[in-house]
Amino acid sequence: MTDQIKKEALEFARKYPISHLATVENGKPVIRVMSVPRIDDDFTIWYATSGTSNKVRQIKAQPGICSLFYNEGKTLRVFARAEIVDDQAVKDELWQEDWAQYFPKGKNDPNLAIIKAIPEHADYDDLSKSDVGLFELL
Amino acid sequence: MTDQIKKEALEFARKYPISHLATVENGKPVIRVMSVPRIDDDFTIWYATSGTSNKVRQIKAQPGICSLFYNEGKTLRVFARAEIVDDQAVKDELWQEDWAQYFPKGKNDPNLAIIKAIPEHADYDDLSKSDVGLFELL
Repeated sequence: MTDQIKKEALEFARKYPISHLATVENGKPVIRVMSVPRIDDDFTIWYATSGTSNKVRQIKAQPGICSLFYNEGKTLRVFARAEIVDDQAVKDELWQEDWAQYFPKGKNDPNLAIIKAIPEHADYDDLSKSDVGLFELL
Repeated sequence: MTDQIKKEALEFARKYPISHLATVENGKPVIRVMSVPRIDDDFTIWYATSGTSNKVRQIKAQPGICSLFYNEGKTLRVFARAEIVDDQAVKDELWQEDWAQYFPKGKNDPNLAIIKAIPEHADYDDLSKSDVGLFELL
């Protein structure tokens, strides 16, 4: 059953690739809404952001993050250790055309930073399956 | 202008009274989705929850929280210091009938806990007003 629920959770996150990402600064949480260009089968989540953003500074100081996807009564939550990945091949692969408004130099923009969130724990809730309750995925 | 934006932000939060609430445990963030029975004109946010919930334990240990409302391209974010309020008059005033599924003893259920989030900082973003950008409310 876990494999089936994992599959449903991934399909859900890929259908609505918007997440709330929480980091910590000075011991207190900070949330922002971010699109998710990629989520891997093992629930590794990839984000693109500005290298000078608060979230990059926060992750470098304290890499624990929480990402939450919520829609249609479904909730996927991933607790992860985030890394800033400076790999041009990854930037090329994740690149989306509409990012050009933020990164005018494109895939090679020196301000483009990639966050890789490596999951440590994940859970999934689907209100339409209230008999299942909160499902521990990882 | 700030007063007008504050008014719009409050109207927005009251129209879509669902927030993502982040707390911190062991230095790492934890998010969950919660309905907001009340938000005051000064952006104080009130939540109802179980007294034995993780969030209550987390808030007692580290009271800094972040609440985010997101809908229709609008984002209200409140950074606050949370307190657990044990005041029957407050419970009576906030009580909603559909909470009975969680608190079978009703307004007097000993497990009903109220979180009061006292704002320290708040910002608001409305994509339809991209000329304004992120607006500092508090």
